[in-house]
Amino acid sequence: MAFQYKAPLRDMQFVMHDVLGLEQFYAGLPKFSDTNRELIDSIVEAGAQFCEGELAPINRSGDEEGCHFDNGVVTTPKGFKEAYAKYVELGFGSLAAEEGHGGQGLPPTIGIAMSEMMGTANWSFGMYPGLSHGAINTVEAHGTPEQKETYLTKLVSGEWTGTMCLTESHAGSDLGTIRTKAEPNADGSYSVTGTKIFISAGEHDLSENIVHIVLARLPDAPKGTKGISLFIVPKFMPDGSRNTVACGSIEHKMGIKASATCVMNFDGAKGFLIGPPNRGLNCMFTFMNVARIGTAVQGLAAAEGSFQGALEYARDRLAMRALTGPVAPEKEADPIIVHPAVRQMLLTQKAFAEGGRLLCYWLSTQTDLLNGSDDEAAKKQADELMSFLTPIAKAFLTETGYEAANHGVQVYGGHGFVREWGMEQIVRDTRIALLYEGTTEIQALDLLGRKVLQTQGAMLRNFTKIVHKFCEANKDNADMAQFIEPLAAVNKEWGDLTMKIGMKAMQNPNEAGAAAVDYMMYSGYATLAYLWAWMAQVAQAKIASGEGDAAFYQAKIKTAQFYFQKLLPRTKSHAAVIENGGDVLMQMEAEAFAF
Amino acid sequence: MAFQYKAPLRDMQFVMHDVLGLEQFYAGLPKFSDTNRELIDSIVEAGAQFCEGELAPINRSGDEEGCHFDNGVVTTPKGFKEAYAKYVELGFGSLAAEEGHGGQGLPPTIGIAMSEMMGTANWSFGMYPGLSHGAINTVEAHGTPEQKETYLTKLVSGEWTGTMCLTESHAGSDLGTIRTKAEPNADGSYSVTGTKIFISAGEHDLSENIVHIVLARLPDAPKGTKGISLFIVPKFMPDGSRNTVACGSIEHKMGIKASATCVMNFDGAKGFLIGPPNRGLNCMFTFMNVARIGTAVQGLAAAEGSFQGALEYARDRLAMRALTGPVAPEKEADPIIVHPAVRQMLLTQKAFAEGGRLLCYWLSTQTDLLNGSDDEAAKKQADELMSFLTPIAKAFLTETGYEAANHGVQVYGGHGFVREWGMEQIVRDTRIALLYEGTTEIQALDLLGRKVLQTQGAMLRNFTKIVHKFCEANKDNADMAQFIEPLAAVNKEWGDLTMKIGMKAMQNPNEAGAAAVDYMMYSGYATLAYLWAWMAQVAQAKIASGEGDAAFYQAKIKTAQFYFQKLLPRTKSHAAVIENGGDVLMQMEAEAFAF
Repeated sequence: MAFQYKAPLRDMQFVMHDVLGLEQFYAGLPKFSDTNRELIDSIVEAGAQFCEGELAPINRSGDEEGCHFDNGVVTTPKGFKEAYAKYVELGFGSLAAEEGHGGQGLPPTIGIAMSEMMGTANWSFGMYPGLSHGAINTVEAHGTPEQKETYLTKLVSGEWTGTMCLTESHAGSDLGTIRTKAEPNADGSYSVTGTKIFISAGEHDLSENIVHIVLARLPDAPKGTKGISLFIVPKFMPDGSRNTVACGSIEHKMGIKASATCVMNFDGAKGFLIGPPNRGLNCMFTFMNVARIGTAVQGLAAAEGSFQGALEYARDRLAMRALTGPVAPEKEADPIIVHPAVRQMLLTQKAFAEGGRLLCYWLSTQTDLLNGSDDEAAKKQADELMSFLTPIAKAFLTETGYEAANHGVQVYGGHGFVREWGMEQIVRDTRIALLYEGTTEIQALDLLGRKVLQTQGAMLRNFTKIVHKFCEANKDNADMAQFIEPLAAVNKEWGDLTMKIGMKAMQNPNEAGAAAVDYMMYSGYATLAYLWAWMAQVAQAKIASGEGDAAFYQAKIKTAQFYFQKLLPRTKSHAAVIENGGDVLMQMEAEAFAF
Repeated sequence: MAFQYKAPLRDMQFVMHDVLGLEQFYAGLPKFSDTNRELIDSIVEAGAQFCEGELAPINRSGDEEGCHFDNGVVTTPKGFKEAYAKYVELGFGSLAAEEGHGGQGLPPTIGIAMSEMMGTANWSFGMYPGLSHGAINTVEAHGTPEQKETYLTKLVSGEWTGTMCLTESHAGSDLGTIRTKAEPNADGSYSVTGTKIFISAGEHDLSENIVHIVLARLPDAPKGTKGISLFIVPKFMPDGSRNTVACGSIEHKMGIKASATCVMNFDGAKGFLIGPPNRGLNCMFTFMNVARIGTAVQGLAAAEGSFQGALEYARDRLAMRALTGPVAPEKEADPIIVHPAVRQMLLTQKAFAEGGRLLCYWLSTQTDLLNGSDDEAAKKQADELMSFLTPIAKAFLTETGYEAANHGVQVYGGHGFVREWGMEQIVRDTRIALLYEGTTEIQALDLLGRKVLQTQGAMLRNFTKIVHKFCEANKDNADMAQFIEPLAAVNKEWGDLTMKIGMKAMQNPNEAGAAAVDYMMYSGYATLAYLWAWMAQVAQAKIASGEGDAAFYQAKIKTAQFYFQKLLPRTKSHAAVIENGGDVLMQMEAEAFAF
């Protein structure tokens, strides 16, 4: 009874071609200049077929069955092994990997489109190849030629998978306090000892081998974050012998139950230093950005999936009459899509899904640029834009994706709470997205602290300038006034708010901490306002030029209007909460929270 | 590892005695004049002991085990049967039942305090006796003397439990379309035939017998809501023979897994008409209000439980340093309660829990008044206040309780997503509260449509007058200005907004539908603002008079300040969204939501 996932190809094409103009964009990037529209569409369509046909059908069953752990062995749910084999066979894992070790060398944005579809169809499944990307990127960026030779080809093909082993039970975001140690062996390798938790895909039955990238401390390492090094620790050594790393147990979780979350015990496991000693966290930064964008996609996927389910149900389910009189008098009641409150939920899901899509894909084109351009100035600009937008995309899209998932349940009424309909699974699966790869609160501090205040606002101004230019360019377009006016206002208020927070934070750093989450949400709504205005402008131009399907573009404009009238006003509360400062949070003594 | 529930006795006493002055209040109600403070406290303390000692320990295990269905037989999780027997033995079920059939005749508010503790300790367990209340109230209010004789005593004692059988698979909130039929038998009884779904406690192993109250249609019944009658259909007939009603299956749900949600098949089951024919829905109204207040308590319970868990964790868990420098330099990191974002979540939970407690208890004292007073004017006033506040309490407290439950997960970081910590269970268990007994959207329509607009605003004015009087009474109190000023402003804006919606809705009923949910949330924040100002005023008076524990009252004032500075500003967004009207919701054609 669960809804059938259909890849939203029309909207993906709108974002990729109408808005981002990928073909032309790639034509300007030496490395990706072959990537034309036909190629993009054919890959995306093949991906859609795989996700709809292979992954969506094992999403509900995978949730019910979960992963099984028995004496160190992890078994994934029925159908996962076959689907993974097909995924490898069809080459989806190697799409965006560098050429040279079996990678297809396509731009990262193609990979993001694939991630969105896989993630909406079956987020748990996507975790297995998803985690490999972190390992692949790390080896690509920091591995020796020999390490690349040994590990990359099989990781890229998907014959092997990878993990990132960061967290320990006492240290989640606070990686400076990790205790896993790496002691040098005579042969130049290291003995890695310690226990890591929350290791996604740490152990499973999908691939021949698993390559762990492990954060650990060398014997002489300085304390804190500057004493962390990275090690490659394979499950099976290149000679085929079993390494002393083993899964101790798997977590029983709220959601993503088909994704194995492992406790990994490293018991003098043989590891190889990758990257310079004590610089492990720096080596992780590239990966972290990629992982955060990947998690942002989970928010988008939740919004898209729950929207598809809710829309189908709202069109079919009959209950009550429209407030203005029967719409389907021949039936016992009207379909619930006639009710304004149902429409408000559907449009909220739609606005977050489609706005989130553009944010993820646009952000990803900055990675395309970074990887594929020769123009240093353009690369610097892309890097800064990405640094600024990544925490927004990660935190805002997962928060709004979770909201959308909850609307999905709500549209179904009591049926939404029943597992067979599939809507509550999206809520449970998505809940983790607000936690892993840095919680919403950590992203908010990264945005406001590191990205905005530490650059004296420069990174924010980079972005608000883009918005300002857009407003200027469209100021004489009467049809756009409905968007440009509120966009310009929020763009200005964003800067003013930042200034005020900055002044207060100079006196008291807790003021930044107190403002951060509301500031992040404010920034998210402001960013999406720009993206919706941009989409409306593209849609208006298409209609004016008579190109394409007018009904599609009209709906896009109406969704933009909805966004501006019904979602953007949420900035008002966030602004007011920010203005009220942090004293009221800090004045309560820890003992006085409860008696 | 899950947190240990402790009944918040100090805060419950604050609400019952300091704020509501229950002893004095009951002294003025002839029926309840014996209910003194000592009696109240002793019952509540006995209840606390039972909930902490018997119910909390089987909450996590009940979730993991769930209910089992086998060929019509439902088995509850381990420990439920024993706990239920103890519940009956200790007489908790009969506390607030009318005297005469074994009821203890205590005021409903004592029952609400008990419900809160049971619900926070183990919501699923509370569903079994909770559903009995509906059946008890229905038989008490509408049963013949013979029906009362036959059913009430055992329902009140808890030896039997009851259900309310309303929903059918095609008809949830839209009860007018139900199809279950009742055909008269020669002996004056009826043959009831049909299938009901989502029947909580429809079948289980806790009690000897189950008494179903069933909505069905007589053969000659008019169509729609005016053709529905109520029937008593016992599982076992008074003579001990088995009736032809059986459980067909149980739902597999997101949460409240230890509560059996049953498909009930009535196959010519013997039933007895209760109340006048075709007036079944009218007979249900009393019960519905009670059930809605009961569901509001679930929101309060979610906020309280998740607050307790999050507070414990935030005081213990070490991660990062305070932004202003180490607070616990002797430790590896500071407890996370030093971080403003964590405090914001904790204070949000606290403000919703404690504000929600007063709302539920205060609302319940209106029931006390209705049941226990001889003063007709006071009863009318109480009835109107209850009619107005019930949809707010139900919708707003479950929405905010769900938010609080999510903060609980968030404070735990990745551990919040792992089942053993117990925080994600609160999210899953609470999700249903936004759906059953009328969704948030249905409550919102009830509030704005039936309660406010249909009375030309009279019911709202009844309430805003109370608030206005409070503001006037405290206008010369300098310490109260911080609360009175924003409270008076929101109280006025509430009326203005209502007027504007009313004007628009006269032109177009969809304007009411479009505004309803935001209006309900606005009303909730406004109502809680009044309650927090009231609590602050009581706390200030206690401090001024040197009575009681000053630290407790100081914390209360600080929480009120938090509420006014950080939560009340959310009205700004809701007001702006309301002002933007409904066109933007209605203009999208149903076909244009997706392509």
